[in-house]
Amino acid sequence: MPPSVSVFGAAGFTGALTARLLYRHPEFELRALTARSDAGCRLDELFPRHRVPVTLEELDLDRHADVDAAVLAYPHGAAAPLAATLRERGVRVVDLSADFRLRERSVYEQWYREHPAPELLAESVYGLPELYRERIRDADLVANPGCFPTAALLALAPLARAGLIEDVVIDAKTGVSGAGRAATERTHFVSVDENVSAYGVPRHRHTPEIEQELAELGARVNVTFTPHLLPLDQGELLSCYVTLADDGADASRHSQLFADAYADEPFVELANAPPGVRDVRETNLCRISVHPDARTGRVIVFAAIDNLWKGAASQSVQNLNLMFGLPESAGIA
Amino acid sequence: MPPSVSVFGAAGFTGALTARLLYRHPEFELRALTARSDAGCRLDELFPRHRVPVTLEELDLDRHADVDAAVLAYPHGAAAPLAATLRERGVRVVDLSADFRLRERSVYEQWYREHPAPELLAESVYGLPELYRERIRDADLVANPGCFPTAALLALAPLARAGLIEDVVIDAKTGVSGAGRAATERTHFVSVDENVSAYGVPRHRHTPEIEQELAELGARVNVTFTPHLLPLDQGELLSCYVTLADDGADASRHSQLFADAYADEPFVELANAPPGVRDVRETNLCRISVHPDARTGRVIVFAAIDNLWKGAASQSVQNLNLMFGLPESAGIA
Amino acid sequence: MPPSVSVFGAAGFTGALTARLLYRHPEFELRALTARSDAGCRLDELFPRHRVPVTLEELDLDRHADVDAAVLAYPHGAAAPLAATLRERGVRVVDLSADFRLRERSVYEQWYREHPAPELLAESVYGLPELYRERIRDADLVANPGCFPTAALLALAPLARAGLIEDVVIDAKTGVSGAGRAATERTHFVSVDENVSAYGVPRHRHTPEIEQELAELGARVNVTFTPHLLPLDQGELLSCYVTLADDGADASRHSQLFADAYADEPFVELANAPPGVRDVRETNLCRISVHPDARTGRVIVFAAIDNLWKGAASQSVQNLNLMFGLPESAGIA
Amino acid sequence: MPPSVSVFGAAGFTGALTARLLYRHPEFELRALTARSDAGCRLDELFPRHRVPVTLEELDLDRHADVDAAVLAYPHGAAAPLAATLRERGVRVVDLSADFRLRERSVYEQWYREHPAPELLAESVYGLPELYRERIRDADLVANPGCFPTAALLALAPLARAGLIEDVVIDAKTGVSGAGRAATERTHFVSVDENVSAYGVPRHRHTPEIEQELAELGARVNVTFTPHLLPLDQGELLSCYVTLADDGADASRHSQLFADAYADEPFVELANAPPGVRDVRETNLCRISVHPDARTGRVIVFAAIDNLWKGAASQSVQNLNLMFGLPESAGIA
Repeated sequence: MPPSVSVFGAAGFTGALTARLLYRHPEFELRALTARSDAGCRLDELFPRHRVPVTLEELDLDRHADVDAAVLAYPHGAAAPLAATLRERGVRVVDLSADFRLRERSVYEQWYREHPAPELLAESVYGLPELYRERIRDADLVANPGCFPTAALLALAPLARAGLIEDVVIDAKTGVSGAGRAATERTHFVSVDENVSAYGVPRHRHTPEIEQELAELGARVNVTFTPHLLPLDQGELLSCYVTLADDGADASRHSQLFADAYADEPFVELANAPPGVRDVRETNLCRISVHPDARTGRVIVFAAIDNLWKGAASQSVQNLNLMFGLPESAGIA
Repeated sequence: MPPSVSVFGAAGFTGALTARLLYRHPEFELRALTARSDAGCRLDELFPRHRVPVTLEELDLDRHADVDAAVLAYPHGAAAPLAATLRERGVRVVDLSADFRLRERSVYEQWYREHPAPELLAESVYGLPELYRERIRDADLVANPGCFPTAALLALAPLARAGLIEDVVIDAKTGVSGAGRAATERTHFVSVDENVSAYGVPRHRHTPEIEQELAELGARVNVTFTPHLLPLDQGELLSCYVTLADDGADASRHSQLFADAYADEPFVELANAPPGVRDVRETNLCRISVHPDARTGRVIVFAAIDNLWKGAASQSVQNLNLMFGLPESAGIA
Repeated sequence: MPPSVSVFGAAGFTGALTARLLYRHPEFELRALTARSDAGCRLDELFPRHRVPVTLEELDLDRHADVDAAVLAYPHGAAAPLAATLRERGVRVVDLSADFRLRERSVYEQWYREHPAPELLAESVYGLPELYRERIRDADLVANPGCFPTAALLALAPLARAGLIEDVVIDAKTGVSGAGRAATERTHFVSVDENVSAYGVPRHRHTPEIEQELAELGARVNVTFTPHLLPLDQGELLSCYVTLADDGADASRHSQLFADAYADEPFVELANAPPGVRDVRETNLCRISVHPDARTGRVIVFAAIDNLWKGAASQSVQNLNLMFGLPESAGIA
Repeated sequence: MPPSVSVFGAAGFTGALTARLLYRHPEFELRALTARSDAGCRLDELFPRHRVPVTLEELDLDRHADVDAAVLAYPHGAAAPLAATLRERGVRVVDLSADFRLRERSVYEQWYREHPAPELLAESVYGLPELYRERIRDADLVANPGCFPTAALLALAPLARAGLIEDVVIDAKTGVSGAGRAATERTHFVSVDENVSAYGVPRHRHTPEIEQELAELGARVNVTFTPHLLPLDQGELLSCYVTLADDGADASRHSQLFADAYADEPFVELANAPPGVRDVRETNLCRISVHPDARTGRVIVFAAIDNLWKGAASQSVQNLNLMFGLPESAGIA
């Protein structure tokens, strides 16, 4: 019998896409989809392109928690209490919110708010499979990384592990779907079209998440991270400007670090030319290029992902695959 | 002393643009801008690109009605009562809503709602200068045409006056600014981007307005009118498929009708090739091309305008210019 | 042993996508890809997103014609001679060009040019599976329909078969990928962005193809067909304005005709609301809605497809599936 | 008698826009427009939106050089010889190419090619009015800055003059018009749409121009400069990440430097929120915001311009105004 999964909060962009991936997944049984204001709608009415003929239901724990696993697509702060309840009932959880990404409660509370379930922080695993594959297999609570940290960490891990990062500026460009389904002045077509501007300056909330994981890899740096909103729907490009701890003279070494790190990774692609987000649209892939510059001694690393896929939904399925001992690419390749 | 004007409802797209045009107008004095939820903001905070350093105020008739003229950028139904009040105080009004466009109260009430000020219908003038220039000069209440009717009537008037229209299908394509500043699912970037779809099918509210004015010109037809939403911000293209009352054999006649009709019009351009909306962006121009097809006996007329300019704001200034005996192009050429 | 297929002209948008679909197809073996100016490149260098690590080769019939089937993605006029050669060698052909779509040589020569292989017209089958599924199974030469005719015929077939079409205006909106990979003034980003305009007025070459097939279905009409170029890459929406032969009073009948016609079609979707092209992006689906208008007596039918998929590449695979007795959805669902 | 001007190379995006600005300029007489492949066309056929009913002519020095001033919109390398010829005839020149921007011949030849007219380097003035207003007034040969250097220098000048820049990373985002009118794979709509990627990595040719001018201002740094191509037509945003020479503790000081520097500049706007390129579209303005980050000790400066206006055409008119003693804003405000 295939493991059963429910998606909680399936009316948003990432929840709906997770539902689509699980609905067609060869090894999971999609059990139920919940939503608040859209309860009663069928998902294929809200999002015809996903073609999931399943009705969204109001949350009813007695019915919806009777599953092997849950994906939570709730806002920050709202996810943690539900995760706690589901864990009590033995449900394994992948949480798309930020609630369990930061290991230190104090850091969370500095950048977000009071933590609603700090007791669970110790058991949560940061769900970036390329870094923590083995821990994810055994985890019962996986914190799916933020979209920007996903790309940033894949872009920087080889250099961080080699102790080469002295300083880094990350300039991120993202499509509008990253801002979610809520209709706001910021997501209005006329605000975005023919426009580009920075937001979250100078302290976007994904900064401590990137710093935490870089530190784990050996690079204790204050990251300068600035996202920009672009007139496109899905896609995220990170331009990472790394000041090297060594003299940067040995340019070929850096490319080799990436080749070694990602030789066997099914979802990381190395390219010679700077990647475009179109190259990875609607895939679980991260496409990376590495460019040493002898003039400045810097290395520039570009990483492109689809923010809704590798940056959220398909990565949550990649995590589920690992947690249930399935082929890592099942349903997302 | 220059005539003074206030703009009521200046926080929306068309009201704000009208404010910008009047703020820089050589002959009018922009007196005040009102708004509801954005009162207290400066317009150049809401719309930096308009560069109007004027604070939006809550409506205060005692102060704001002490002007020579008013432009109303209120929603349908809300405009009429304000227009009535302003008329009582002797203010000349250009109304951007639909409230005074339809001469027959019953038609208005069939397509919209109960009319809030039917007593004013008799005195209102339909503000399409290319058709009603003389009446507008003497009018105290001008109903600024809808964006689609503006383009449709300029596209069809020469054929209508010649008695040549037996039937017409109007397929309209519009940018998102036409849907207004409200953030809704429909105006969300992700809904519009890489997409195109029809709306208001089969009965968009601009249909009776087009039919009324075509009838005035001599063409009593049931118009098939269907707008489509496109991934662009400003611009509107109408493709008008005319079945001719004559046999359509004399193709050169049709082009001549347009040449004659618009020879002296400062804001109508005739082109040989089908116009694009980029050709008229941020102008008060309507660009038209005429294409007879001997195979089908039809004439196809394309008309492109900027929905916020000739379709609303700059046309309201064109009307004000006429009403106050100013050069028709003042402030909008 | 799976049937082998080569794609001739695989460096263009449709050829490359066909290559991608066949490269991952569960039942075909992709044998070779040919190209002219890009010979020597790997397809995943030209189009990283397709992820086809196959090198494009210059045409060498001795090697490339030794296959069971060929997909031809050549320009009009150039496809026919190659098709003739391949047929002589016993290769079954799906041709993406217009060379074999028009049954009458004289019609082809009136709208295109002298026909390079008129002797093959008699054996070619028009490859719209929803109309000619059985003939396609036995065909050795299939003319893949044009993108506009594909959507137009699926939109109109139920009404045409019922003898209900007296007249029709088809207003089409298409993304830029339909113009092909050639870099021209028309495909320059700056020409298309924030723009929309008609082209091929008043006689686009897809008109006789639509008329031919409507006549086959029972509707002998002069079609008015006008395409418009939109700022999006993939996607095509057809708005079909049908003047009915009957009085149009029985609105429910029309919807029933569509429900009956498409009940078992795997790649036709009926919707209540007007479809958007985003609903079918990167699929082999055609999504249709039907809207009677009692005021005008017309029926409006909208049909959305992805011009590169159902309008070209994935439909060619659908045809190949039929020709080789495979499940019709293999590799494209 | 107003000074006369010809535009050489008026068929490209910047030349055509310069022609439009001069055609409507209150103080200059636009004498002639030249072009190569488009000679014989009227400019309003090529670019209806500019509404310049002037025919492009093949270069004929005897006729076209009989003017007071010339704007050159030729490619790099081709501009210098023409500039030399025009200078010999006493014509004052504003050159939009890179040929006279770099003071050191060796630097030009390292980044571009052999210099065609090195003898003129000594007399050319770098045409950024906000830095070199007085020198421009007396100049006979003005090198109009590159679009990226224009924004970069306005963003960094106040910090550079104060000796505060220790290091800087400049991440630039530009619309497609910056790539010019040539139809190439890179400017094809399908390449750009729904995409973003870096180019010119790691050594874009605007780098030495930025470094030269920063050094003039007192900041001798190796600049890391990386442009990215975005799906929009006009607009350029520079995100400048400055490592400060001091400890960065005195955040208020930095804002004050900008306020002081630009208090009287008609074309520089300071904003609190990060600017968007829409804020300055079709204007000669540069909009700047300054954001100190105490966490990292960096200052982030954003600068937005319209690459075709302040980044090229309208800045060339601003320079002409200065050269001829006219009001600096004439024809461009």
